[in-house]
Amino acid sequence: MKKYNVAIMGATGAVGQEFLNLIEERKFPFAELRLLASSRSAGKKIAFMGKEYTVAETREDSFEGIDIALFAGGGASKTFAPAAVKAGAVVIDNSSTFRMDKDVPLVVPEVNPEALKEHKGIIANPNCSTIIMVMALKPLRNLAPIKRVVVSTYQAVSGGGKEAMAELEEQVEAIVAKKPVKAEILPGASLKKHYQIAFNLIPQIDIFKENLYTKEEMKMIDETRKILSEPDLRVTATTVRVPVYRSHAESVNIEFVEAVSVEAARKAITAFPGAALNDDPDEQAYPMPLFTSGKDDVEVGRIRFDESVEHGLNLWVCGDQIRKGAALNALQIAEYMIEHEMIG
Amino acid sequence: MKKYNVAIMGATGAVGQEFLNLIEERKFPFAELRLLASSRSAGKKIAFMGKEYTVAETREDSFEGIDIALFAGGGASKTFAPAAVKAGAVVIDNSSTFRMDKDVPLVVPEVNPEALKEHKGIIANPNCSTIIMVMALKPLRNLAPIKRVVVSTYQAVSGGGKEAMAELEEQVEAIVAKKPVKAEILPGASLKKHYQIAFNLIPQIDIFKENLYTKEEMKMIDETRKILSEPDLRVTATTVRVPVYRSHAESVNIEFVEAVSVEAARKAITAFPGAALNDDPDEQAYPMPLFTSGKDDVEVGRIRFDESVEHGLNLWVCGDQIRKGAALNALQIAEYMIEHEMIG
Repeated sequence: MKKYNVAIMGATGAVGQEFLNLIEERKFPFAELRLLASSRSAGKKIAFMGKEYTVAETREDSFEGIDIALFAGGGASKTFAPAAVKAGAVVIDNSSTFRMDKDVPLVVPEVNPEALKEHKGIIANPNCSTIIMVMALKPLRNLAPIKRVVVSTYQAVSGGGKEAMAELEEQVEAIVAKKPVKAEILPGASLKKHYQIAFNLIPQIDIFKENLYTKEEMKMIDETRKILSEPDLRVTATTVRVPVYRSHAESVNIEFVEAVSVEAARKAITAFPGAALNDDPDEQAYPMPLFTSGKDDVEVGRIRFDESVEHGLNLWVCGDQIRKGAALNALQIAEYMIEHEMIG
Repeated sequence: MKKYNVAIMGATGAVGQEFLNLIEERKFPFAELRLLASSRSAGKKIAFMGKEYTVAETREDSFEGIDIALFAGGGASKTFAPAAVKAGAVVIDNSSTFRMDKDVPLVVPEVNPEALKEHKGIIANPNCSTIIMVMALKPLRNLAPIKRVVVSTYQAVSGGGKEAMAELEEQVEAIVAKKPVKAEILPGASLKKHYQIAFNLIPQIDIFKENLYTKEEMKMIDETRKILSEPDLRVTATTVRVPVYRSHAESVNIEFVEAVSVEAARKAITAFPGAALNDDPDEQAYPMPLFTSGKDDVEVGRIRFDESVEHGLNLWVCGDQIRKGAALNALQIAEYMIEHEMIG
């Protein structure tokens, strides 16, 4: 089997580390592995599969000889993705930089792999909440066209990176020890105000836009339309940070153009690769973030008729947003491209 | 000023204790105060306003001479509410027993005080999530008729009583101490299975009904219709338990029959007694459960246009469900009835 030279940019963050976990777990066929990060993390040693790697600072010339560059996210993508493409690499970018660029495919491999054909070197990995939602929407849309989606999210702190996870942990420890609680990261490190997330909810993820929606909410709307190739799909979103470490949850209300039965929806979710039905009220079985953490599948449950509209369903979706919501989806894109001979 | 003989049934629980806090805080005009509970709690001493009270076991003859009986909730209402009425008391009952009874007014004093006129001795206090939602719906419905509501809740553990609050606290302490976590209460003490709530979400509150909705979800639908006197109002709900101690939050999507501007909605919320606008994205101001705990007002924020529908608004509502969601609302009913000479 052919092996590929792989670079991971942002190797020291939460998504970067998950890339490493998944490369090992999935036996990803790598030859050389180059770990890159900002100057702050350069020099750090990372033990991986019996070998020690030294993290190098990302520079424009860091991608010579690389076949696949996995970008964990962040602002540096704008500079380094074009540099990596120029050096001959395929870039799979987890940042939001290129997602809405019409020349860049935005891909969830189970949902719209066909978009990969059009790539020009950069492939964008969608926003975590969007990936998790479209994994439930796509199999249902195969049953009937969707008229409108109303989604409210319950997003884990790991979506805010390692620092946000550490902040929740430290806040909880301080509260148990009856010490003062510090809040310096959430809802966003660069924002003016920070709020305690332990035993609290923060209805702000990312910055506010002119239209009073957050950037996270607009990503869910815009990216869902692009991934499903439905530029006019009616979607509205409210995104909320909750004191959970890993796995996002979403309450999704769908209005269809035609009737979709609960039974048909359950079957469609069960049959869809990457999605798993967890829906048995008699056994109190439904998706919960604690039990989807570290899992690949996006779980769907609480499927039921919504009688407030002609053809409606309510559902509850949970998925590990560092796995399927970020690193796993990106790696699956690479695997798909390898399998379909779209990479070197 | 006239004073009233008051009984509190369920005085030792979370709502019962909040009754006591509020009676003191609001200088409720009581003469005698009788604290009642189940046989398990009888004999317990409670210090209140410089006096020590002994909790008595509730019996059919416990209500002689009582003007106002505040029932904190639970199954005993069915037996003792009629007994209290027979003894001449007005019963304000926080349980779900009588809420959908057509002879029992279901009242939020700011929303439908007129329903009190029809009372026959028992007044039902609505479900906590319902109270919090209708406090936002009512002022907006004054602007334009409502076509449909889609609500997803983020409900604090205190809705499950003192035991659920203690369970979250113990789980968090165990996790910090790296000890095994016990789950014995949530999602409901009498249910077959129990799940960890610390750092988790449980999409089940109360038991499941035939239609795959939980009883909590159906309460939000049925009670909202009754309180707003709109038996056909289109409402759908998803209710979720979150690891927050106090204050429920709700993501509410409203479709109106006519256009309602964000500015008009903000003004209507501001002007409505018992509701408070907390909505300034530039200042990152929005309702959060940590900061509405212990407060009387239901806070509304994140008000914005929903472009996925003709006349839509999204909003985010937070309220202390032990206060406005339970004890405060019940006490306000008593105050309203006193003021309007509907009691003794």
